[in-house]
Amino acid sequence: MSEQLTLYTAKICPYAQRTEIALAEADARFTRYEIDLRNKPEWYLPKVPAIAYGGPQVPPDQPSPESVKLNESLVLVEFVADLYPNSGILPKDPVLRAKARLFIDAVSNKFSPANFSVVHNDGDPEQLVQALEHLQSLLPPTGFAVGEYSLADIAIAPFLGRLHLNLANDLGGFPEGKGEGERILKLLQSPKLARFQEYTKALLDRPSFVATFDKDHILQSGKRRFAELRAKKYGA
Amino acid sequence: MSEQLTLYTAKICPYAQRTEIALAEADARFTRYEIDLRNKPEWYLPKVPAIAYGGPQVPPDQPSPESVKLNESLVLVEFVADLYPNSGILPKDPVLRAKARLFIDAVSNKFSPANFSVVHNDGDPEQLVQALEHLQSLLPPTGFAVGEYSLADIAIAPFLGRLHLNLANDLGGFPEGKGEGERILKLLQSPKLARFQEYTKALLDRPSFVATFDKDHILQSGKRRFAELRAKKYGA
Ligand SMILES: [Ca+2]
Repeated sequence: MSEQLTLYTAKICPYAQRTEIALAEADARFTRYEIDLRNKPEWYLPKVPAIAYGGPQVPPDQPSPESVKLNESLVLVEFVADLYPNSGILPKDPVLRAKARLFIDAVSNKFSPANFSVVHNDGDPEQLVQALEHLQSLLPPTGFAVGEYSLADIAIAPFLGRLHLNLANDLGGFPEGKGEGERILKLLQSPKLARFQEYTKALLDRPSFVATFDKDHILQSGKRRFAELRAKKYGA
Repeated sequence: MSEQLTLYTAKICPYAQRTEIALAEADARFTRYEIDLRNKPEWYLPKVPAIAYGGPQVPPDQPSPESVKLNESLVLVEFVADLYPNSGILPKDPVLRAKARLFIDAVSNKFSPANFSVVHNDGDPEQLVQALEHLQSLLPPTGFAVGEYSLADIAIAPFLGRLHLNLANDLGGFPEGKGEGERILKLLQSPKLARFQEYTKALLDRPSFVATFDKDHILQSGKRRFAELRAKKYGA
């Protein structure tokens, strides 16, 4: 892989972190360009994350019309896996690949809506517990989603990292200072989710996750964002 | 690939046809088992389509616990592409693969909701035209979604086949006999969709599509199904 690769990303965005983890697992050389999502530069049109691939070497804030522009985080993760077959994030065995993609399907269609509801406080946190039990039922007895670390794990890790960080800091769409963050966190620590908790710990300890998760930055952004959401929901 | 492969499928189901087209493109040897979706056998639990892969040779209505069970049509299409690299349905070039997956993303998130609205008559058909214009904007000047026939084309063809067949026979959630099927068909034949029409024709002429699209069966099932939907919506 000798073409240039520029990643347009934002530390706060879990979708963008998926792509960053994939690039870290691949030991890829790339240009990282942080987009301020609250103050997007005028020349930047697509969503975050996006990759500009190939074309001439140019400053990232002057993307060349000759580079290929790609987006959608899960497409980008597969793209990185294809560019870097040695990253190991795409299993070699077709059955394991299919299982990884089925896990991702459950993340997108079962976990994500339940997680979104908890974050915005417009649903029963018990639905999140059920979604996690379902994901847990897909896990092998040990290891990651399909054994070795793969794109399946990359799909969920950024969301679990933010969920735990926010709840531990009483951040969410629920009212502040009523112990609601702690209460939801306790639900997630239920013994019936023991295997999923072990899995979550392994995800959040993974060096490629740690290297792409700027805890302080995400926490500060979260404080601002949830203060705004709460003001809208419950008055200032 | 020497493991046994059994496909549980239904002629009327566009999702199932995706998997059948992929298997046809791959010239795969497999056991095809038709599930009557209106009268599902008790032993059959998953959704259609599903693949049972590996394990001992068993009658399809007595699936072995030793075979791997996989579902989700797009996952199955990728699985077939991985089992049969010579099928050609997964482009070799990572950029073309990413473009194929972006096209599929647009099919799932833009085309499908608009198509569903037209079929059930609870939305403006103009939204479908806009979705098709968007897909058209992703097409290269000639050929299929990313040039050579690929999983991107497989993702949309079964839906376009059913849409055209139904509209041409005045079948849909709209009232019968008012020319509504013809009116929507005319919208799709607008000159601004010329490239998409050419693409649709190539999709529906593809031998793997023709071989897996039982027009009479689908039309008869559609007549029954839309009669029921219309009775529910507009009274008997
Ligand atoms: Ca690795």
